[in-house]
Amino acid sequence: MGYLDRIRACNNGDTRRYLPLHGLGRRFGWVSPVRADLLKSYPQVFRVADDRIDLDPALADYDTASAALDPVLRDLSEQGHLPHWRDERYAVAAEFGEDPILSVERTACPFLGIRSWGFHLNGFVRRPDSLHLWIAERSHTKPTYPGQLDNTVAGGHPEGLSLAQNVAKECAEEASIPADMAARAVPVGMLSYCHESDDGLKPDQMFCYDLEMPEDFVPVPSDGEVESFTLMPAAVVMAIVRDTDRFKFNCAPVLINFFIRHGLLDPDREPDYGRICASLQTPPTP
Amino acid sequence: MGYLDRIRACNNGDTRRYLPLHGLGRRFGWVSPVRADLLKSYPQVFRVADDRIDLDPALADYDTASAALDPVLRDLSEQGHLPHWRDERYAVAAEFGEDPILSVERTACPFLGIRSWGFHLNGFVRRPDSLHLWIAERSHTKPTYPGQLDNTVAGGHPEGLSLAQNVAKECAEEASIPADMAARAVPVGMLSYCHESDDGLKPDQMFCYDLEMPEDFVPVPSDGEVESFTLMPAAVVMAIVRDTDRFKFNCAPVLINFFIRHGLLDPDREPDYGRICASLQTPPTP
Repeated sequence: MGYLDRIRACNNGDTRRYLPLHGLGRRFGWVSPVRADLLKSYPQVFRVADDRIDLDPALADYDTASAALDPVLRDLSEQGHLPHWRDERYAVAAEFGEDPILSVERTACPFLGIRSWGFHLNGFVRRPDSLHLWIAERSHTKPTYPGQLDNTVAGGHPEGLSLAQNVAKECAEEASIPADMAARAVPVGMLSYCHESDDGLKPDQMFCYDLEMPEDFVPVPSDGEVESFTLMPAAVVMAIVRDTDRFKFNCAPVLINFFIRHGLLDPDREPDYGRICASLQTPPTP
Repeated sequence: MGYLDRIRACNNGDTRRYLPLHGLGRRFGWVSPVRADLLKSYPQVFRVADDRIDLDPALADYDTASAALDPVLRDLSEQGHLPHWRDERYAVAAEFGEDPILSVERTACPFLGIRSWGFHLNGFVRRPDSLHLWIAERSHTKPTYPGQLDNTVAGGHPEGLSLAQNVAKECAEEASIPADMAARAVPVGMLSYCHESDDGLKPDQMFCYDLEMPEDFVPVPSDGEVESFTLMPAAVVMAIVRDTDRFKFNCAPVLINFFIRHGLLDPDREPDYGRICASLQTPPTP
């Protein structure tokens, strides 16, 4: 077990096992063969061929395409193919910040292999002995990954907010971090991965933030998503990431990136250093 | 012009235009079709097919293979196909730190498309107004990239030294940085790229270091490789990287990575942010 295993567990998807989903002039999703068969029941919306799926060409703009997909996804949900329906619209775009081409119910993103964006923030304290990180334990009643360890604050990106606004919102909701402290969060990069699970494919991108916190600040869960926060020495967090799978799959790479940027991994001593750095970005997909 | 153009100019090579070079049980180089034709003159060493090149299978160990390649490379050099013969051995390995499979004259690496490693270090000063970087101007008489701008210290990785030892050595030689200051250099990642030039292909990897310097320290060129050092505000360096090609091709990505890690690029304002982060690593080649 080691850092590379954590990155591989997060980046375990392979688009070659999926059918590209095209519409509105571009490829915007990846669908497994089993799910492609389910989509054959909706020929007014999906044209399913052996090697690709196309939206009906009549669905040529944002409103028409979004409206046509909605009853299909609701039907799939009622049949039990989409867990955790959230009633939350997700804007589908090729790149972050670009105009969306359509919107779908958020829970359908993995089913259709649609890229989504979010941020992960590591709160840390520079103690004289060593750097310490505030690690969250996810609520044991959360539907997704209950009880797993998590970065201090994280959240999917909702329509209509900037990244900085979403960071401030989630900092307040998940950890009671005041706005003036959240405003000092530093954007330090973006990681991409392609994760496969029972829900489908997540070819996602995460914006990473560092937030140095004063010694006397203690984050407090406020929306029930987090069970507790613990301030851990970096060496302890590193051992948990390296030797266990206690962290949620996409939190480990964010921490590994943190270890790299803060010089906590030594390229003279870590034989996988180059492979670790290179594997924190997936190659762009067509 | 922008950051992505700088990364593309560094990462302008495409191994699909090259023949894979195999030997000692693995692919270890990439050779252009024109150079593959030249290698046909040495059938005792190279077996050149339409789609790949193999070392003669009799060259089955480090010493035999290295000894067989040497006269071929000297001959190519005498014919003018290898510029800047350095009389410096380069250990060929699949990954940094692994046992080398053979060694070659360093100047032959791009000709044969052999991966090489090095480090780039950015020296910086935290001034109250903003972060400043020490930028080097390369000697106008250096054979490679004369007069271009460069990171504070950089160097290829020689056989027999650790990265930390090489950082200390080059810090002293190129910038008169004392050993105790060089020892505070922080390893902050590794970037990979695939660069094509008249010399051949460089599918290389660079280890990146940050070195925070005291306000009153001034680096001084000591081995003639650097013309001068200038302390520049980060905003000025950013504008030079973004809007000009004054930096040597592989220094711009190291600076862009620095800008990202230090929060100098804002993902809410930089529309290419995600693409920039993703393109600082090339996908692994087979």
